[in-house]
Amino acid sequence: MIDAVDINCDMGEAFGRWRVGDTDDTTLMGLISSANIAAGFHAGDPNLMDQTVRLATEHGVGIGAHPGYNDLQGFGRRKIAGTAKELVNDMVYQVGALREFARRHGARLQHVKPHGALYMEMAVDAELSQIFMQYMRTVEPNAYIFCMGGSETYRVAKEAGQPVVREFYADRDYDDTGSIVFTRDAGRPDPAAIARKVVRACREGKVRTVTGSDVDIAFESICFHSDTLGALDIVRQMREALNAEGIRIAPVSEIAGH
Amino acid sequence: MIDAVDINCDMGEAFGRWRVGDTDDTTLMGLISSANIAAGFHAGDPNLMDQTVRLATEHGVGIGAHPGYNDLQGFGRRKIAGTAKELVNDMVYQVGALREFARRHGARLQHVKPHGALYMEMAVDAELSQIFMQYMRTVEPNAYIFCMGGSETYRVAKEAGQPVVREFYADRDYDDTGSIVFTRDAGRPDPAAIARKVVRACREGKVRTVTGSDVDIAFESICFHSDTLGALDIVRQMREALNAEGIRIAPVSEIAGH
Amino acid sequence: MIDAVDINCDMGEAFGRWRVGDTDDTTLMGLISSANIAAGFHAGDPNLMDQTVRLATEHGVGIGAHPGYNDLQGFGRRKIAGTAKELVNDMVYQVGALREFARRHGARLQHVKPHGALYMEMAVDAELSQIFMQYMRTVEPNAYIFCMGGSETYRVAKEAGQPVVREFYADRDYDDTGSIVFTRDAGRPDPAAIARKVVRACREGKVRTVTGSDVDIAFESICFHSDTLGALDIVRQMREALNAEGIRIAPVSEIAGH
Amino acid sequence: MIDAVDINCDMGEAFGRWRVGDTDDTTLMGLISSANIAAGFHAGDPNLMDQTVRLATEHGVGIGAHPGYNDLQGFGRRKIAGTAKELVNDMVYQVGALREFARRHGARLQHVKPHGALYMEMAVDAELSQIFMQYMRTVEPNAYIFCMGGSETYRVAKEAGQPVVREFYADRDYDDTGSIVFTRDAGRPDPAAIARKVVRACREGKVRTVTGSDVDIAFESICFHSDTLGALDIVRQMREALNAEGIRIAPVSEIAGH
Repeated sequence: MIDAVDINCDMGEAFGRWRVGDTDDTTLMGLISSANIAAGFHAGDPNLMDQTVRLATEHGVGIGAHPGYNDLQGFGRRKIAGTAKELVNDMVYQVGALREFARRHGARLQHVKPHGALYMEMAVDAELSQIFMQYMRTVEPNAYIFCMGGSETYRVAKEAGQPVVREFYADRDYDDTGSIVFTRDAGRPDPAAIARKVVRACREGKVRTVTGSDVDIAFESICFHSDTLGALDIVRQMREALNAEGIRIAPVSEIAGH
Repeated sequence: MIDAVDINCDMGEAFGRWRVGDTDDTTLMGLISSANIAAGFHAGDPNLMDQTVRLATEHGVGIGAHPGYNDLQGFGRRKIAGTAKELVNDMVYQVGALREFARRHGARLQHVKPHGALYMEMAVDAELSQIFMQYMRTVEPNAYIFCMGGSETYRVAKEAGQPVVREFYADRDYDDTGSIVFTRDAGRPDPAAIARKVVRACREGKVRTVTGSDVDIAFESICFHSDTLGALDIVRQMREALNAEGIRIAPVSEIAGH
Repeated sequence: MIDAVDINCDMGEAFGRWRVGDTDDTTLMGLISSANIAAGFHAGDPNLMDQTVRLATEHGVGIGAHPGYNDLQGFGRRKIAGTAKELVNDMVYQVGALREFARRHGARLQHVKPHGALYMEMAVDAELSQIFMQYMRTVEPNAYIFCMGGSETYRVAKEAGQPVVREFYADRDYDDTGSIVFTRDAGRPDPAAIARKVVRACREGKVRTVTGSDVDIAFESICFHSDTLGALDIVRQMREALNAEGIRIAPVSEIAGH
Repeated sequence: MIDAVDINCDMGEAFGRWRVGDTDDTTLMGLISSANIAAGFHAGDPNLMDQTVRLATEHGVGIGAHPGYNDLQGFGRRKIAGTAKELVNDMVYQVGALREFARRHGARLQHVKPHGALYMEMAVDAELSQIFMQYMRTVEPNAYIFCMGGSETYRVAKEAGQPVVREFYADRDYDDTGSIVFTRDAGRPDPAAIARKVVRACREGKVRTVTGSDVDIAFESICFHSDTLGALDIVRQMREALNAEGIRIAPVSEIAGH
């Protein structure tokens, strides 16, 4: 039974004149505690990064770098077969760019969370997790890594002593291994069903998988996506349901400690 | 009469499998004191940035971020009509990315020098210079700005109290205003003529312009380009000529103070 | 007094998962007679190009290639200082790509219309217009060029014997030279005011400029933009107003002849 | 025993100011009979495409479109996990762009050959091969498809009735299935060893694999890469060796028929 939880959301995922999803970041920012801010490779451009970091700062929302594959057209949801070393270089680049905007606005980097297909790849690739974690240990040993509890990312972060936050995915399905089922487009899921699923995960530590089984799930943060249709309803109903259960939304530092 | 001078060079300007110019960065790095490292928009990719920063660190060469227009095809030598605000956001992004690689290798950012057409644009655009300088004052008040002595960049940096370094361009022509004549391709200039031009600039503080007049020139650093054909001969003959005159190559911090 | 007019609109200007404006191309396609289809440099990706060409074909809408500056972030509304020769190469590339999708769907290329800042640049640059027109004469001597009546593009096309269509811009302001006032973002103009402006242009051949004067305007096609907010209302009210005046919407081939 | 063979080579694989490999296309073009011309996604830009198509035309070399993954940094040698449908859209785009330059120079498209990782992917992906072949049947039923003899590409092309050319790879290793061993960088292979390997393949229809076995190989064209170091020596020694054996270099149309 969890009594407080962080809520993280992918933010700043527009590009130039274009938008995705049906929800405005300005509204969403008031309803989350951690923002995963796109850093230009899968979404986000320098103007938007500046604006999103400032918005997060104004709302006291934790700033996270959200590096992805270098694939604007595929929104970072298509794996690119790079080597672990070059994928980490891509992440260093993006994290550095995002941190600079944070620094410009007097904020610090709270966390790093890889995006989309890169998140899924790191979850199963020990070498990628290790090279990435060496970089984090050198450059930002206090930044949290957001990941799934059963992932290589989690295992390697713990081993290296890097602060780590496990996530529960509100708007994604689970398979029997406790991993989310990766999709390039989540469509428009039912906010009420999501709220029930989240509450159950918080109270019972369990989630129903795509095969109809239950798997155990432990986490400190709930994730949903701003590009999922109906994102605003999703977070509102989720917050109400959590509130009704007496579960607080709290900064990740309070929940995960350091 | 100058008795010590910095030598800066654009470095890390390859991309992926491609190379430009006829000179290898590994050799050049031993012959310069400041490296302007491309940051991915006009040249350079994350793998190369990592490698070039490490190489500079090993040689004790000052690390500079070298942000450019977002135009790989044009090598940052074609002006893009962005607003001052969005061009500075592009620079924040690139400087941040480059700094992260410096941090990863335990190095600090010595300077920032805009590249190509963006350098020329900032030289004449007061608003662009001002927004850029506000950013530098906030984030890195000790980093040097490399620029031409008669530029808006120089004027604004001095006014803001940002450390600044004036450059003399070895492999570019000058016009009667004391500005370099911008070109997208410098061809293969004569290294001996360059060496004489550099020595004269150091001794007499004068340079011959494209109209055949002389203009006064004051500077703390000499710039040449790694993509100019014959770059290795250029720097070698230039160093020999400076040495013969008793002019030392020295770190910019020693010359420009702080 | 015009009794029939073509309506052209920029189409397929999304990218990957992103959308722009508030109007769906599927709805708009039924209300226009010529589609300027983005070709990947300022907007549009291969998947969307395929889909938009098919949609145009299904609606019997004339297919136009809409090449732009290579600047996704700026939506092709920022000038890039390329040479005339390289800008035409960029257009050849994009027109060829778009034509291939047309060919795949059994359709032919009706017209070419440069996008945004490139359209404005060609309007005043005789060399750019000439190199472009040489290419069109060689490769597609029957495709219409869409442009402003007072532009170099128009003058050069007529001189070369390339079929040409003059446009009236519904959702842009005019200056006293008869050129539109370029903007990167048209905001949300009033559809009723636009309808009145269009009807007056058709009946009187005049448009009110930003200084309050009237200039003469002659045209065969009316242009509006799918990324202008309220685009659906704009085209609906415009069509109603034209209909009320007895002005038909007709294919450009019927109006401009050949 | 083969008495005539085509020689194909990847061409136009520079980008902007950058070059790859140590061999100039201008020299190489006189020594091959088919050119696979990069089309902007993995290499090549519109200026270079224009120039390379013209060069091929001047030498009477068959013009091929060489579409690749959309990954300049990885030179198209990193797989991107797109769907078959979207990968074919990417190819349609590139083939169309390349054909437009051919049309501009009065030439026709001789063949299409996917590049790098996309070539390898199509070789094993029946769906990708089928969607691609449907497109070719519709748009260019007389263009040859270049591929490996044991590939899905070959099987599907034959089934569909599309003209097809099997290749022998001079500068790549073979595995025991008769497929080449994919590499992102071929280094600098020995031209003499390559010449011997090519002659043996032509005379005996056999190639030694990486395990030391022999596999049968049938082909109408020999492929080498302009970015392989020593490409000029490779093609020269190969041509001499073929000539010494009385094997002619001939246009693919003469060898493969139609």
